[in-house]
Order: sequence, then structure tokens, then C-alpha cells
Amino acid sequence: MRILGIDPGYAIVGYGIIDTHKNNAVVDYGVIETPKEDPLPVRLQTIEEALRVLFETYKPDEVAVEELFYFKNQKTVIQVAQARGVIVLASQKYCGRTFEYTPIQIKQALTGNGRADKKQMQFMVKSVLGLSSIPRPDDAADALAVAICHSQINPNLNFNMMQ
Amino acid sequence: MRILGIDPGYAIVGYGIIDTHKNNAVVDYGVIETPKEDPLPVRLQTIEEALRVLFETYKPDEVAVEELFYFKNQKTVIQVAQARGVIVLASQKYCGRTFEYTPIQIKQALTGNGRADKKQMQFMVKSVLGLSSIPRPDDAADALAVAICHSQINPNLNFNMMQ
Repeated sequence: MRILGIDPGYAIVGYGIIDTHKNNAVVDYGVIETPKEDPLPVRLQTIEEALRVLFETYKPDEVAVEELFYFKNQKTVIQVAQARGVIVLASQKYCGRTFEYTPIQIKQALTGNGRADKKQMQFMVKSVLGLSSIPRPDDAADALAVAICHSQINPNLNFNMMQ
Repeated sequence: MRILGIDPGYAIVGYGIIDTHKNNAVVDYGVIETPKEDPLPVRLQTIEEALRVLFETYKPDEVAVEELFYFKNQKTVIQVAQARGVIVLASQKYCGRTFEYTPIQIKQALTGNGRADKKQMQFMVKSVLGLSSIPRPDDAADALAVAICHSQINPNLNFNMMQ
């Protein structure tokens, strides 16, 4: 099964694609960036268009999107949530199988500790995926962590066994 | 010029369409509702699909969307902002001319008082549009207020004069 993990953001959206039937092999990872100079409607369209290309290129079977958690800055939470709405809609339109995980669920799945720090998480992403170095930038590593989380705890885990 | 005003929401999205060259005549108004039983991706798709139909049916020249303001409940602000991202994206894709106004701007434009209450706002919507009663539900009246605000203070006001 091919999983697309997404770390939602407004200026930077992280993505990471893994194939679970190949022992969690990395297919691709990276970030979608939206220029600060562009107005909101254009930045949202940039995200949607880049995601459409990702879906058409890699045809993931399922999508895992990190849930938004606590933000101190209300302006930031509104911006990121607006982008996340576009991300979830694109996942629904272009794939149809969208799953959501909280930051705690993702940390728990990868490290056994829902409060693991970023360094520990990145070490586990590198380790689980058999990479020679930690994926950069951080947003891409975070997205790969979401995909790994889904491969480990998603309700269709038996899907792999049935292949 | 035909303006589509939108009052963003997650369970209920208000919309109102006016024609400014006909002395602010109402074309249509109403709400898009998303069932509580549906998961997030489906509810966002419901909003996008209903908006697509509105755009195709009424072909507005410009769209005015209310900005999100202060919320006490962080979960609510995330839900509404996710829906608003979908709304702004749809406006960009299906129209391309999207404008945003704060609640204070809208109240100021309609009543001259940025802190006007709901009753005063609804009275002005009814009065400006020459309606025999206040539009229902409230979300539709709010959306018509956004459209009126845009017709009064938008930077392309001269557009009307050039016709």
C-alpha cells in the first residue's frame, strides 16, 4: 500500500510518500512552499495545485494528515487551518481515503512516547525507513512520520496481509 | 456587477448574491449545510460542491468573504477556518476575484458603527436591499451584509460608473 503523509502548513506544507509492501520504502518527500507576497487565495491555490500533481504522479492508496494542535497565536492557527482545509479537500477529491492523527498519536506510534522530542522523532524516521541521513527539511521528515504512523496503526493494517 | 457574499462556517455557510447595477437587487440567498454525521473530508467536499453549483448558476463577478475573528473555542476556530480555506479556494478557482472584510468593516459599512448589534445589521440589510422582511436564516442575512459591504467599499467601485 502506498501512503502519502502530510504535515499541514500555510507557508510550508511537508509531504512524504512510502510504500508499505516494500518494508516502508521511501518513494519521495519534500515540501510545497507558498510565497509570502501572494495573497491568501493564490497561496491556497498553489497548495491545491501542487497536491493535485503529487496525487496524479504517485497515486497514493491512502492519505494521512496531521491534526492541528494548540497554537498560542490565533492568526497563525487560522492561516494553517485554512490551508489544512484545502489539503483535506484535495485528499478527499483525488484519493478518497483520508485519515487524521494527532501529534501525540504520531509520536507514540514512532517512539512509544507521545511526548518525544523532534530529534528523537527524526532519528526514528531515518531508522524505520532505512535512510542514510535524516530527511530535510524538517517539514518533510514530519510528513514521513505521519505516513509511518498510519502504516503502523491504521485500521486497515490487514490490507497488507491480504496482498 | 454581481457580488456573492459569503459568511463562512463549518456546519452552516451563508451566501447572498446581489446585483449592484440594479440598485442592489437581491438575486438569491440561503445556506449550505453539512451534516454532523459526515466526517471532515466529506463535509468540506459538500461545501466545495455546493459553491461550485452556485458559481456556475449565478456567475458572480466578485466574491466577498468575511474574515474570521476572535473565537473562545480553539476547536471551533480550527473547524471554521478549515471550511473557510475551502471557500476561499473555490472563490479563487471559480471566480478569481476574492475580497475579504473583517466583521468590524462590514458593520461599519452598513451602519456606520463597527460595533453594531445583529438586530441593527439585519434591519440595514432589509432596508438597503428593499426587502419586505429580514432574510432568514441569520447566516444568509450575514452573507448579504458582506455583499453589501463589498458593493459600498470595494476598490473597484468605479467599475459601476464605467458601465
